[in-house]
Amino acid sequence: MSRERGLLVVVSGPAGSGKGTVLPRVMAAGNFRFSVSATTRAPRPGEKEGVNYHYLTREAFEARIAAGEMLEYTTYCNNYYGTPKKEAEAVLETGCNLLLEIEVEGAANVKKAYPDAVLIMLLPPSYAVEEARLRGRGTESEEALLKRLEQARYEVKQAPRYDYIVYNRDGEADRAAADILAIVRAERLRAGRNPDAVTDYFA
Amino acid sequence: MSRERGLLVVVSGPAGSGKGTVLPRVMAAGNFRFSVSATTRAPRPGEKEGVNYHYLTREAFEARIAAGEMLEYTTYCNNYYGTPKKEAEAVLETGCNLLLEIEVEGAANVKKAYPDAVLIMLLPPSYAVEEARLRGRGTESEEALLKRLEQARYEVKQAPRYDYIVYNRDGEADRAAADILAIVRAERLRAGRNPDAVTDYFA
Repeated sequence: MSRERGLLVVVSGPAGSGKGTVLPRVMAAGNFRFSVSATTRAPRPGEKEGVNYHYLTREAFEARIAAGEMLEYTTYCNNYYGTPKKEAEAVLETGCNLLLEIEVEGAANVKKAYPDAVLIMLLPPSYAVEEARLRGRGTESEEALLKRLEQARYEVKQAPRYDYIVYNRDGEADRAAADILAIVRAERLRAGRNPDAVTDYFA
Repeated sequence: MSRERGLLVVVSGPAGSGKGTVLPRVMAAGNFRFSVSATTRAPRPGEKEGVNYHYLTREAFEARIAAGEMLEYTTYCNNYYGTPKKEAEAVLETGCNLLLEIEVEGAANVKKAYPDAVLIMLLPPSYAVEEARLRGRGTESEEALLKRLEQARYEVKQAPRYDYIVYNRDGEADRAAADILAIVRAERLRAGRNPDAVTDYFA
């Protein structure tokens, strides 16, 4: 059988969707591997180039963006963080799956560059639950909370642009993780992803 | 949340693919329900109209075909067997999934009538294994066997027209059943099958 490429899986979810609870369970159970990200932030003590991150200057990072060498990137605390296409390819070529957790604009860009990518929107069961979860954290000012909820509403409305919608119901993070793992398992069986199936069969 | 329709799942597989071993495991574990088929064969003792089958005369069956009321049908031992659309709809409306085991032409016709149907081709791991499985049965003349293998080769070549390809490896019927169940689980999460997702979310 010809070498199977891994699956590029993109998960987006508004604040309160529980990505931080669900995705580690997916990573632990599925055939996933991490790709080494690039960043402009300085290495912390003990971090190694090419292991924790590829450490780039701001100029080098922007040059890579301009050259189309970044699969996706974002800024956080005035630093760039991104996934070099080369690193993503390295993972997919091994046959392992790659999971990227990115917001809706980034996800749309990945789908443009990699139409084979599978886009999953992780959602709380309802907006009422989402609001309750965010308020329950109690770590933000009302103003910051309202802004975050507005952003979340915008993100949820992009769900129809995704391939799949998975709901993370209260206390059912395992079920949401199992949903995502079923999607990964099913997508790898798609006839369109196995163009050599018939040839291989008779080989 | 709006009522979710069940999934129409069509499985085809050449002789030796192990449908008879795999599909009962799928039916037992997934949220499937049987639809009542129609037939022109006479009821056997104890069989009940509308329970085991809808018993039709040849003329009535052919009239239903002509009226486009049969989702699919086939002939076996000079009798018609088929799935009335009304019966299939009745199952799907309950939210349960419906599994039809039909050959490649019938599967293509179902997909035309129900573009939402999910088509799965179940295959032995290779043609060599397929031939070995059929020869292993030892119940056929060489001529009948060769004819069956020719038919199987034709069917396998239709695999690219299916949505998914699942391999039933020796001794791994449970794995093939789990593959099909993952496909069903994933397909029900498709954004395209949940057009009311965003509206429901904010309801």
